[in-house]
Amino acid sequence: MSILESDVRNKTNVKEQAKAAQKASKELAILNEKDKNEALFILADELEEQASFILNENEKDLQNGREKDFSQAFMDRLSLTEERIADFAEGLRQVAGQDDPVGETVSEWTLDNGMRVEQKRVPLGVIGMIYEARPNVTVDATGLALKSGNAIVLKGGSSAIHSNKAIIQVIQQGLAKTSIPADAAQLIATTDRKASSEMFTMKEHIDVLIPRGGGSLINTVVNEATVPVLETGVGNCHIYVDKEADLEKALNILINAKTDRPAVCNAAETLIVHKDWLNEYQSVLENVLKEHGISVHGDEFVVSAFADAVPASEKDWAEEFLGLSIAIKTVESTEEAIEHIDRYGTKHSEAIVTEDAATAEVFMSRIDAAAVYHNASTRFTDGSALGFGAEIGISTQKLHARGPMGLPALTTTKYCMTGDGQIR
Amino acid sequence: MSILESDVRNKTNVKEQAKAAQKASKELAILNEKDKNEALFILADELEEQASFILNENEKDLQNGREKDFSQAFMDRLSLTEERIADFAEGLRQVAGQDDPVGETVSEWTLDNGMRVEQKRVPLGVIGMIYEARPNVTVDATGLALKSGNAIVLKGGSSAIHSNKAIIQVIQQGLAKTSIPADAAQLIATTDRKASSEMFTMKEHIDVLIPRGGGSLINTVVNEATVPVLETGVGNCHIYVDKEADLEKALNILINAKTDRPAVCNAAETLIVHKDWLNEYQSVLENVLKEHGISVHGDEFVVSAFADAVPASEKDWAEEFLGLSIAIKTVESTEEAIEHIDRYGTKHSEAIVTEDAATAEVFMSRIDAAAVYHNASTRFTDGSALGFGAEIGISTQKLHARGPMGLPALTTTKYCMTGDGQIR
Repeated sequence: MSILESDVRNKTNVKEQAKAAQKASKELAILNEKDKNEALFILADELEEQASFILNENEKDLQNGREKDFSQAFMDRLSLTEERIADFAEGLRQVAGQDDPVGETVSEWTLDNGMRVEQKRVPLGVIGMIYEARPNVTVDATGLALKSGNAIVLKGGSSAIHSNKAIIQVIQQGLAKTSIPADAAQLIATTDRKASSEMFTMKEHIDVLIPRGGGSLINTVVNEATVPVLETGVGNCHIYVDKEADLEKALNILINAKTDRPAVCNAAETLIVHKDWLNEYQSVLENVLKEHGISVHGDEFVVSAFADAVPASEKDWAEEFLGLSIAIKTVESTEEAIEHIDRYGTKHSEAIVTEDAATAEVFMSRIDAAAVYHNASTRFTDGSALGFGAEIGISTQKLHARGPMGLPALTTTKYCMTGDGQIR
Repeated sequence: MSILESDVRNKTNVKEQAKAAQKASKELAILNEKDKNEALFILADELEEQASFILNENEKDLQNGREKDFSQAFMDRLSLTEERIADFAEGLRQVAGQDDPVGETVSEWTLDNGMRVEQKRVPLGVIGMIYEARPNVTVDATGLALKSGNAIVLKGGSSAIHSNKAIIQVIQQGLAKTSIPADAAQLIATTDRKASSEMFTMKEHIDVLIPRGGGSLINTVVNEATVPVLETGVGNCHIYVDKEADLEKALNILINAKTDRPAVCNAAETLIVHKDWLNEYQSVLENVLKEHGISVHGDEFVVSAFADAVPASEKDWAEEFLGLSIAIKTVESTEEAIEHIDRYGTKHSEAIVTEDAATAEVFMSRIDAAAVYHNASTRFTDGSALGFGAEIGISTQKLHARGPMGLPALTTTKYCMTGDGQIR
């Protein structure tokens, strides 16, 4: 019986695993960057060497998925190959190459009484990661956590359980050859949903929860957790085409944001278009949408004017399509566009296309979102596209970190005061 | 019937008030620093001019407090005077003098494709402040919120309801003379506790909750809120006197941290002392504690060795005394001291007294707290003592802000991207 199997059978395993992770986090927090990087390289090699073991275990999840008749898209995300495992390894090597934020002096000064104050960057401690079917999160999140000096407790989706168990077993075997304690990466290897809820309130041992997945997973965590949550992801993103929008830019940006990867959070879901612009360019817009196989859910004006539009429901305005559909709302002013985004946006990424700098300025300053764009695609809201390196998710909340979260988002600070007897 | 009275009678007032605050926050967010400062000066003058009205209303709370036989300490916190109101006004003028974080460019760069990325500091939006009896919080929190471009929804304790209503009425009258919409400062003017719980889940209209008060208030908010919480305050702080501690520094720091203001969160609650040091200095320590009227709750060793010590209970180790009692734990190593703090500390402020730099370094790097001190009193964990200016509270959590929170803690950032048609 492996350690993981015994854990699954032990009812108190979540708490015990979180405690073990916390203990490991204290050793990990004071490791230097060189030791952490060496460890990441060893993990990368280990994953490549053990690829066939991981693929065998992955096959069990795929088999199960076929029996349950999961969608093709789902099976694609679940499926591993030798090449994907090599990508995991390469991802770890890239994280090793990112700057270590830990130990950075954020600010320092000396008080009149001679006491020195240093604000230093330190790891958060233990990160609880709750996610759905993609086994790549198991590797990516572990790499980012370890590099930033944090232990991690992973709770993946049940459909990827064999893959995740195999990956974490390889990671723990790898860690045994490094300065990082093997307990620093833990997988809650059960398909019992209660295991997640146990994590929600484990404030003593888990410092932050990061949910990654669909809206319902994220809402459950936000609503039930007392552990602080870094909320990631749902993006109901809008492209506002102003009356002064350049035709080519508008179409390029719209089609890129809608079709490049329709299922991701920075894809566009609604086009808001100024009626003056639409009057001039309606036929070319309709043709381009048709060419790209995009179906239109429109407001009254659009439904009456477009050949193939269906009426948009409240849900169409409020939620992601995650596919080749778009909602189209017509407006008579930028103000009206901003009001629509205020009402339906999820504070992720919003774009305006216009040649009018003053209008752009109003939009950029008034829109409340992690990322706002003038004449560029919302698809750039992504750690690697913006040059941060790997990211652990995209925060749509305002506290702590907003937008793509790289290594610094996994740290906090500590005030370190040095005196020679100062009192108040 | 005043506006406030009608609000109290209107069952939906909390939501309506939060919505009004949110609407105001959008105008406030784009005001410049000069306009915000002018407004704070006008509010300061208004408070001084209307002092007698506020004092009359405060008298109603005091009368009620006397009827209910509230403690002297409680009545002291509740009681206003002409001088205290002048202090409120002075506090607002000082906040006007603090740097405005809003609009600051935190970082900026240009991608290879020519798209410019600017990370700008912006207000959080609407702050929900839930607090207990001190009417000064009504003024202080409003000043900090408005200066950082945020609207605020205040829910004070029922024992200060008349004082808070009077203060907010004066503030709203003052705001009417400024560029800040009067709706930007709202008081939930009811003694109904349900009003607080309505705020807990009002994610659409409130961006962050800040509870200030005792442990039970804070726990209720943390456990029940789905709105993100900035957790403030409970400080179970330790002074560790190492075997290499200087006698004078140790006693000065201990007495200052314990007795200067025993009821505040940065006061010391437990002395951890190395047995070698205690062997040498026990009698002088006992005398000094006695001189200052400090009663001792000790571990077994202390109880057997000290003349007047009682055994410390689990509660004594885990909670604040908030008065002239101290728990004393003896240890044989710094490791043991760190373990005790890991177990019982609240991650607020922790101090070591030692002349051994290596031991200090271990303690400073290993202790997980907002503030760690070497040879200085924990009493310095305070916005004004550290030179931040006024603070809205002291964060004991790790996300977003840690330690004393000044104006920057009331902001978030936004990525503003400017392109000329870039797509991915």
